[in-house]
Amino acid sequence: MSKGITSKNEDYSQWYNDIVIKADLAEHSSVKGCMVIKPYGYSIWEKIQAVLDQKFKDTGHSNAYFPLFIPKSYFSKEASHVDGFATECAVVTHYRLKNDGNGNIVVDETAKLEEELIVRPTSETIIWNTYKGWIQSYRDLPLLINQWANVVRWEMRTRLFLRTTEFLWQEGHTAHATADEAIEETRKMLDVYADFAENWMAVPVVKGVKTPNERFAGALDTYCIEALMQDGKALQAGTSHFLGQNFAKAFDVKFTSKEGKQEHVWATSWGVSTRLMGALIMAHSDDAGLVLPPKLAPIQVVIVPIYKTDEELKNITSFVDELVAKLKRLGVSVKYDDRDSQRPGFKFAEYELKGVPVRLAIGARDMENGTVELARRDTREKQTVTQDGLEIFIPQLLEDIQQNIFSKALNFRQDHITEANSYDEFKELLDGKAGFISAHWDGTPETEQKIKEETKATIRCIPLENKLEDGVCIYSGKPSTQRVLFARAY
Amino acid sequence: MSKGITSKNEDYSQWYNDIVIKADLAEHSSVKGCMVIKPYGYSIWEKIQAVLDQKFKDTGHSNAYFPLFIPKSYFSKEASHVDGFATECAVVTHYRLKNDGNGNIVVDETAKLEEELIVRPTSETIIWNTYKGWIQSYRDLPLLINQWANVVRWEMRTRLFLRTTEFLWQEGHTAHATADEAIEETRKMLDVYADFAENWMAVPVVKGVKTPNERFAGALDTYCIEALMQDGKALQAGTSHFLGQNFAKAFDVKFTSKEGKQEHVWATSWGVSTRLMGALIMAHSDDAGLVLPPKLAPIQVVIVPIYKTDEELKNITSFVDELVAKLKRLGVSVKYDDRDSQRPGFKFAEYELKGVPVRLAIGARDMENGTVELARRDTREKQTVTQDGLEIFIPQLLEDIQQNIFSKALNFRQDHITEANSYDEFKELLDGKAGFISAHWDGTPETEQKIKEETKATIRCIPLENKLEDGVCIYSGKPSTQRVLFARAY
Repeated sequence: MSKGITSKNEDYSQWYNDIVIKADLAEHSSVKGCMVIKPYGYSIWEKIQAVLDQKFKDTGHSNAYFPLFIPKSYFSKEASHVDGFATECAVVTHYRLKNDGNGNIVVDETAKLEEELIVRPTSETIIWNTYKGWIQSYRDLPLLINQWANVVRWEMRTRLFLRTTEFLWQEGHTAHATADEAIEETRKMLDVYADFAENWMAVPVVKGVKTPNERFAGALDTYCIEALMQDGKALQAGTSHFLGQNFAKAFDVKFTSKEGKQEHVWATSWGVSTRLMGALIMAHSDDAGLVLPPKLAPIQVVIVPIYKTDEELKNITSFVDELVAKLKRLGVSVKYDDRDSQRPGFKFAEYELKGVPVRLAIGARDMENGTVELARRDTREKQTVTQDGLEIFIPQLLEDIQQNIFSKALNFRQDHITEANSYDEFKELLDGKAGFISAHWDGTPETEQKIKEETKATIRCIPLENKLEDGVCIYSGKPSTQRVLFARAY
Repeated sequence: MSKGITSKNEDYSQWYNDIVIKADLAEHSSVKGCMVIKPYGYSIWEKIQAVLDQKFKDTGHSNAYFPLFIPKSYFSKEASHVDGFATECAVVTHYRLKNDGNGNIVVDETAKLEEELIVRPTSETIIWNTYKGWIQSYRDLPLLINQWANVVRWEMRTRLFLRTTEFLWQEGHTAHATADEAIEETRKMLDVYADFAENWMAVPVVKGVKTPNERFAGALDTYCIEALMQDGKALQAGTSHFLGQNFAKAFDVKFTSKEGKQEHVWATSWGVSTRLMGALIMAHSDDAGLVLPPKLAPIQVVIVPIYKTDEELKNITSFVDELVAKLKRLGVSVKYDDRDSQRPGFKFAEYELKGVPVRLAIGARDMENGTVELARRDTREKQTVTQDGLEIFIPQLLEDIQQNIFSKALNFRQDHITEANSYDEFKELLDGKAGFISAHWDGTPETEQKIKEETKATIRCIPLENKLEDGVCIYSGKPSTQRVLFARAY
């Protein structure tokens, strides 16, 4: 099969699109800005969901479901929240269509809503309006809830998975008796996200806190994990917000403390979305297609028979059936592709494109020799291995591949964090696609804004593990006590 | 704890609402017609989803995701489809809010959509518009896809789980090369639903086909499973539609057959929704609260310690910890409730209300005697059993309970299918809450409509396992060849 993937070095953006389309992950729908997530892409998302969901439950959270629609007035209750989301909202104004008598389906103007409904761009307002009824006493706290849902933010410029008008996500919304507990929750969920990114997605991330300019609308602090893509651009892969008492005050959610006092509740929210799919694709893939870390690969091992006669196929199949059974018992996801409608070369190219970590090819000669040909997707290396002990070799190999993909991404990231000590140096590094640039900043929103306007680079975060260091802001020359991470970003 | 549940016999409708609210399953949101599914209710829905999802995968289906929004014009393409859904659609007309300068958040009239978008009430149109790009040849068929999603149908009169403006569901949408294959798929998925209803939900169902009046808008045939609630009303628990070539023609989806001819594709769709939660609650519960079949109970066994001293508690806990570990290894979901903030009686009432199938209470005397007190939720019987062998006794008991709940519902259903041979008899049975009434019908939509207007009873289905029998229509006196099932319904 001809893959027709644009080379990554030639046109990174087109390369990304080619992989998403050709590997059958997603496509644009005919509804502006909305995507269709195709079965193969969705099967990866299901794996992401399953792992995260278990982690949320292991940390004491329960799932629930809140309405898709939010009354317009709710938005106005938290001032900075409405400013952040008002300009990108899908608004429901009517609840009926009708036939206009000439065979045209038109909006029925007699069915106009008294108050417009917003399709949720995020659910803080509707959820805190609900929590008011659920929280009376300290005994009702903490309230640890997560929701898997679709949300809509009207985007003018969209890219599959990375920025779409509708996307799928999870949003955690928790309520606590004290600020300390809420901050601890915020940080805990950031750690969950970082653990998932690094140990499942094999994407190294920097944990940090956002500057006020980049905070979530309504938060006191936004924590984030920032990943680096192969073109040197950063991607925010998850955020965890400490919301203080803003939403509790906006929706009047109070509790009676142990001491009998009425106090406003402390809040957090945290989310990751189908954007993670974009990060996963961009972090590891190559010009031959998708590269998936084994832990998130819907198919971890594919087996392709190479045969001329039915007798040969039968012989290969009887060996494969046994191997498949053994691997499945070990929790390995394996597919035997014995379609006779496609040639082996076509299948090899297809599974390479789809990022299947391990491919086994078995021919008549292999059956005689007691061997198989094994190709790993990450390194594209082939080797001949013995059939004996494959069920031990393969699980170990999958772990090695997982580790190797992570190491490769980590090395790339380490090579792409550079210190800049002047604005000229900063701009030069940016143009050289240096990745993250660690530089001193005077701490003002004005400087941050000017650097953004002039270079398109933003402060991705102030890393949590930052060490204090005296210096001067690369832009203003004013004193600074620590470096922050700049980058151009998705 | 005082449960405050209205008696079923006193006010069935209030009894149902009381259980939904008091067992923490769901509540009305402040958005008209939309519900909040609370954590405990959602955990039951997650179990329903997990089982069904596996069944869909076992029958060869993959999940995917299609846009929430459907362009208005798509609806018009399939004539009967738009008639069926146009009058209950949420319509998005704008994509931005703004501050009007006086601090009010208003719709930005400059951000009006050229074509209105409908929030999906069902996804046939957007999906078939997508399938056009996916299907070229017979090799692309069958296409077997399912989607888990939220949908919106603007309902004027809503009831928690049973009828809400927004609800959660799954919708399967498949494409086939021949009518026979599509019909086979339609029937296969009906069987999957029936199997799930009976063997997981413990709700016996009648499989049947709808009359033309009751068909899905755009279908050639609608198959259904119909369940009977304790008040004698029927509830449609799932539907599976043979759509013929209607949507393929509306969206011009053709394929090249093996013989090289261009043909329109054959379609099915099938779905179940959070309405199943309503059926589950209404089919089994009693005046003490929810009764859950063990296979769908988030907590199958709860253990409550009864103690006076810390020493006693410690002794009980060390036994319980071991038992819990054993049961968990066997896949039993078990909770040890050693909260010291609530008394045992309160806990007993709470778990009864929440439908936990088995409750164990263990006190100091029990520890001396090597016994536990065991209460089963379905029969509300208590017995003393020995601690030895509990890990064998309990899994078996859970199976017995599952079977018993089903048998009870099946007996009720059997007692509530009655033959009526005249219209007077028919009306009398209806008023006596006889349940399903099996009666002859002349096969015309007019008669069906008149019976509905006069009695509020509809034809729930023509059972698939119907035997032919000559008779006369109870309403018109015209000849009939088979009985059909009437009932008042949710």
